[in-house]
Amino acid sequence: MNYPSKLIENAIEEIAKLPGIGKKSALRMALHLLKRDEKQTLRLAEALTAMRTQIRYCQQCHNIADADLCGICANTKRDVSLLCVVEDTRDVLAIENTAQYRGLYHVLGGIISPLEGIGPADLKIDSLVQRIEAHLGTTQAVQEVILGLSPTMEGDTTAFYLTKRLKPLGVKISTIARGIPIGGDLEYADEITLGRSIIGRVAYD
Amino acid sequence: MNYPSKLIENAIEEIAKLPGIGKKSALRMALHLLKRDEKQTLRLAEALTAMRTQIRYCQQCHNIADADLCGICANTKRDVSLLCVVEDTRDVLAIENTAQYRGLYHVLGGIISPLEGIGPADLKIDSLVQRIEAHLGTTQAVQEVILGLSPTMEGDTTAFYLTKRLKPLGVKISTIARGIPIGGDLEYADEITLGRSIIGRVAYD
Repeated sequence: MNYPSKLIENAIEEIAKLPGIGKKSALRMALHLLKRDEKQTLRLAEALTAMRTQIRYCQQCHNIADADLCGICANTKRDVSLLCVVEDTRDVLAIENTAQYRGLYHVLGGIISPLEGIGPADLKIDSLVQRIEAHLGTTQAVQEVILGLSPTMEGDTTAFYLTKRLKPLGVKISTIARGIPIGGDLEYADEITLGRSIIGRVAYD
Repeated sequence: MNYPSKLIENAIEEIAKLPGIGKKSALRMALHLLKRDEKQTLRLAEALTAMRTQIRYCQQCHNIADADLCGICANTKRDVSLLCVVEDTRDVLAIENTAQYRGLYHVLGGIISPLEGIGPADLKIDSLVQRIEAHLGTTQAVQEVILGLSPTMEGDTTAFYLTKRLKPLGVKISTIARGIPIGGDLEYADEITLGRSIIGRVAYD
């Protein structure tokens, strides 16, 4: 496309690099910003810059944070005996939103994926093992590690590898339940999910 | 949602103000930027700031521009006797993309909409009349004004008002053709479009 201004062309090109945004949406956003108060654009630009340059990562769980420890690790009311291992920050937010979990997290920063060249060494797995080892036998000891990984091939590979590393530490290892989603219709469930939900059936109480 | 960091929360709130972006997409974009090179975020922030603070509007057609005149008005190869009146920059881009038009444009900056409180005085209509008057009788005179407005109630109202203002100047006034889209199926066209395309039938040659 032939843009009337180099300035808008640059902005559109940079906006279109965001995930899920094409050139047409980027143009729409650029024109929207041009129509609105200049302050809105400046606030957006400043918020992005501040986020990218000032953000820190929790030294304990590797979640994004404003300080050395994230808000969850710094919260003394959380149950330190429970540790949920997740792929990234989005998963932490998703689980926090359920308000069903009071333990801590460990953010791997990715998932083992040989196709994309991501191996165990690229993830925060050594840090997880050290974190558990450091408190073994103390009152702060982790009793149970919950594998909160996606039920994909990569997720299963990562879960398998983590189990191998964590077994020697003697902690209980569990995984989030897989099955038919609440409100889901049996006849529309895919065979693999339905099959697994039958194999993994639980006592009815 | 409970964000682990005030910095990311601010960024998400600002991103979510963009059209078509909700909190979930904004979170996805923020995490994407955090994963990528810091330079990408800084380039985005700078491109947005530069666009918003440095952009100018063409003194002749009111399209966005980098200088006093936009690239189209400054191009001496364009046909100055043809003037296409459009609502905003997006329409200019859409028409330019067809590569079928070699005349100039006039960007109204909106459309008459009593419901939204936008009247003729809020648009660049006086400027259009003055622009045509200024060259009347010279070699630079506008011979034809094409109304490139959307076929909506507001578009029709604006076209009606423009015709009233432009008639006294003695220029030819035309409107872009309305009818069945190329590749469209007759049976799926709405009655109004089909009805108008029969009334506005053209000689077959």
